[in-house]
Amino acid sequence: MATNQKLKIVPLGGLGEVGKNMLAVEYGRNVLIVDAGVMFPEQDMLGIDLVIPDWSQYLKDKKEWVRGIVVTHGHEDHIGALPYLLAEVNAPVYGTRLTVGLIDVKLQKHNLSSRANLHVVSPGERLVLGGLFEVEFFHVCHSIPDAVGLAIRTPVGLIVHSGDFKFDHTPTWGLPPDFGMLARLGSEGVLLLMADSTNADTPGFTPSEKTVDEGLDRVFREAKGRVILATFGSLISRVQQIINIAARHGRVVAVDGRSLEESVERAQTLGYLNIPPGVLVDLTRLKGRPDHQIAIIATGSQGEPSAALGRMANGKHRHITIKSGDTVVMSSRVIPGNDLLVGRAINKLFKRGARVIGGKGDQVHVSGHASQEELKLLLSLVKPKYFMPVHGELRHLHAHAGLARSQGIPEQNILVVENGMVVELDEASARVMDRVPGGWVFVDGSSVGDIGPAVLRDREILSQDGFVLATVRLNEKTGQPVGRPQIVTRGFIFVKDNQELIERAEDEIMAALRMNSQQDPQLTIRKALSELFYSETQRQPMVIPVIVEA
Amino acid sequence: MATNQKLKIVPLGGLGEVGKNMLAVEYGRNVLIVDAGVMFPEQDMLGIDLVIPDWSQYLKDKKEWVRGIVVTHGHEDHIGALPYLLAEVNAPVYGTRLTVGLIDVKLQKHNLSSRANLHVVSPGERLVLGGLFEVEFFHVCHSIPDAVGLAIRTPVGLIVHSGDFKFDHTPTWGLPPDFGMLARLGSEGVLLLMADSTNADTPGFTPSEKTVDEGLDRVFREAKGRVILATFGSLISRVQQIINIAARHGRVVAVDGRSLEESVERAQTLGYLNIPPGVLVDLTRLKGRPDHQIAIIATGSQGEPSAALGRMANGKHRHITIKSGDTVVMSSRVIPGNDLLVGRAINKLFKRGARVIGGKGDQVHVSGHASQEELKLLLSLVKPKYFMPVHGELRHLHAHAGLARSQGIPEQNILVVENGMVVELDEASARVMDRVPGGWVFVDGSSVGDIGPAVLRDREILSQDGFVLATVRLNEKTGQPVGRPQIVTRGFIFVKDNQELIERAEDEIMAALRMNSQQDPQLTIRKALSELFYSETQRQPMVIPVIVEA
Repeated sequence: MATNQKLKIVPLGGLGEVGKNMLAVEYGRNVLIVDAGVMFPEQDMLGIDLVIPDWSQYLKDKKEWVRGIVVTHGHEDHIGALPYLLAEVNAPVYGTRLTVGLIDVKLQKHNLSSRANLHVVSPGERLVLGGLFEVEFFHVCHSIPDAVGLAIRTPVGLIVHSGDFKFDHTPTWGLPPDFGMLARLGSEGVLLLMADSTNADTPGFTPSEKTVDEGLDRVFREAKGRVILATFGSLISRVQQIINIAARHGRVVAVDGRSLEESVERAQTLGYLNIPPGVLVDLTRLKGRPDHQIAIIATGSQGEPSAALGRMANGKHRHITIKSGDTVVMSSRVIPGNDLLVGRAINKLFKRGARVIGGKGDQVHVSGHASQEELKLLLSLVKPKYFMPVHGELRHLHAHAGLARSQGIPEQNILVVENGMVVELDEASARVMDRVPGGWVFVDGSSVGDIGPAVLRDREILSQDGFVLATVRLNEKTGQPVGRPQIVTRGFIFVKDNQELIERAEDEIMAALRMNSQQDPQLTIRKALSELFYSETQRQPMVIPVIVEA
Repeated sequence: MATNQKLKIVPLGGLGEVGKNMLAVEYGRNVLIVDAGVMFPEQDMLGIDLVIPDWSQYLKDKKEWVRGIVVTHGHEDHIGALPYLLAEVNAPVYGTRLTVGLIDVKLQKHNLSSRANLHVVSPGERLVLGGLFEVEFFHVCHSIPDAVGLAIRTPVGLIVHSGDFKFDHTPTWGLPPDFGMLARLGSEGVLLLMADSTNADTPGFTPSEKTVDEGLDRVFREAKGRVILATFGSLISRVQQIINIAARHGRVVAVDGRSLEESVERAQTLGYLNIPPGVLVDLTRLKGRPDHQIAIIATGSQGEPSAALGRMANGKHRHITIKSGDTVVMSSRVIPGNDLLVGRAINKLFKRGARVIGGKGDQVHVSGHASQEELKLLLSLVKPKYFMPVHGELRHLHAHAGLARSQGIPEQNILVVENGMVVELDEASARVMDRVPGGWVFVDGSSVGDIGPAVLRDREILSQDGFVLATVRLNEKTGQPVGRPQIVTRGFIFVKDNQELIERAEDEIMAALRMNSQQDPQLTIRKALSELFYSETQRQPMVIPVIVEA
């Protein structure tokens, strides 16, 4: 092995967040991939279902080099792109038991389960991949059980990857953080630390999951009627907390919403949910039971009208009708861009008589990511030579870099990079190199990658002012119109109230075609209609002429 | 005057927020209107420019009864609908000097300035409207100078309306709150208090505008290069703060963005901005001046790509190129739904080398609305018999109602109502009556009210999966197709890569028309194409057949 070879680190994909969804570590002809998650489309990615990292350029000639895919935990933004990646790359996947269980559910849905090569590992275990990378898994606390960080021993030195984490001294699942391991890694000498920057601009410590116990306990103590709690299916330890507290207060628990039902079932099968006998009941079996003995865990924490809570808020739920006395608890974070939908759902629940809890100070949710004091502690324990903030938007990476600077890491040893940028590393140097082209790929319906900026721009225009399509029959020889044009419009005006404008548009087409018989009729029609509509309505619908020969 | 007549209070309009934008007080054949503001369209009101209250049903037979329109302050959500209201209702408008100045700017743009009947009033002044309502204006602190609350003496008793307010002991403009006045009103005996609920779910006191001085001073002290501050044009006292601090630190100030320039000019003309000579310079005159002597106040605090800061973030600003050393300050709140755009702009500014300030703990913005402790203090001072929380979404009204309950106002005397609900009031009773039909009206381009749910639904479908339009020539006699169909599609697929699918669609149309020659060809085509596209792409574009006779 050439001693002057460098290690490359490449964060891939990500809408804003860097290295969150996928990261590659490369040495010689060996690639180790960390995580392969999806991103959720942002509000102006119209009609898009999912977004996955665009690994096509980076992996183009390297698919055979991938020695393994190591997954830190089972959240969608870390496992969701695996079905797409495994369709292209034939490599073994390593994760803890729950993580592999959740990956398996996902692969089954894509009919890939039988072909995939999944391996369960435990914290403390070491793997050697490609005869080159020694990957050691260590336990971290996060909002899902069985999350791990990674210590990767490479030919150039030891690399530590925090995964998604927080330092929770009183976690509701599993052990407290493995500070001993982090300190040992620090003594061994860490070349590079990559750490979770999600909350790098939040001062202090993230409260323990345990504080949510107190908040929820108060809610259950005060509630006179049913308690309905909205959370994510992936927050399995939150589900456990709710079940424990409900049981303590003599309530049964029903789970409402497909993603929650699936997660609960899987977590239970794998032994990650401990449900006392008789506590979990089917939603349809709640009838006849007194309200103060009922708790419901529901999907819809982001205000989605089609999820369980959204249907309750809109009075469209088949089994649950919200009424005075109900207490609704919003027990999850609001993803940026969703605050308006969440606000609407809450207002509608109030309107139906429910009391809704979930504001500041209610203690019914905490973040799963470390805040500034925890990030400083991690840096002090691991004492890396180089530091690369990951898992956050550029603004969070800069905040995290500021913490590292204040702890004495020299400016030139702090690597704030964006997705696709290649970091080259050896014992004595770290450099940010050129960018690998890429970014992300849209999944829309059953197709991956066929929707690009042109289609999205059309959707944007259509969403603002709709379209007007004019079908005109032209005489093949004279080029003059035959009969009246036919106009079809959607999303532009309310046609019934605007017959006059439509007729004027038809007249304008006829007049314009007569006046400009030498010009391209398409251009003539487009120009005439665009001008008419803008001057009459100040709107700019998409104008599409269709010429039919007659 | 009949002694058994009741006073009616009707909050009108509002997207979520109750009585924020407009409120009517009615007695006999007399109506007093408080404020007439616009709402900003929410993200799923596709293509809509503005939203105004729908007063058509309430005012239908009462336009002649309006004795006056009283305006509490000059923010858009309190004055923006006046041009539309004054086009229908001929009534005098009353407001303080700055408020009337800002209304006048607005009316000039609509060419209504000469017709309108505007009156300047001062805090402490009393007006008698319709020989019946005595309106007394009192000074309140808010994020715009010259804001007032209202004491309205009516035949059934005294009504107090807080307007938008906070209790700021150290305001940056004008006097501290008029606690004496509130206490006197309390002693006089208040029948009904209507109070600002915007922050009713925020514990504690809203920090003083003065604390922003400290935060901004620190920014200016630490900044090595230019300081660029994004805020709203309507935050005139914030603009004054920035000018004072910049001047103290030896910087000139340029204003960038039309809405800011207009507000600053108007406020300066009216004497509400005090600018030391030489401090305000034109943006184009900054060249050659050292960076540490420059401050720029810019529009774009909501991340809008077309505003001044957005153009800087995107590298599309004609005069300003963001560079390392620049400090950007986000000095305004983020309106719900805008957090994603704001986050993107911040990331781009970081990418260009700027340091961006505006997180928790940076003290560069405070709310203009009272928090829980201030709301409690107002209730204690005014001691109303009845209480009606206004200016907030239903969840905020309920939080505010909770505060009133905890201060001993009986449950049945607290009126949580929604827009359009009529409250009937006399000395001894308050009842919530039926709802007046209404809500809001969309302004899109030059038309008011012609866009309704049907058009918005079309825009929504088009924004998700686009459309496919198939023009088919049918033989008049046989009903059979002549030639091939013509297919036009936008926003559905990338046509160049999907020629095969388009051709299959044409074939399907031909086959379907042959097989179903007895059926409506429109239905036949729609069904055939919808099925084909869904099975091939899992998408559901709008399918529109156009039949041309041949």
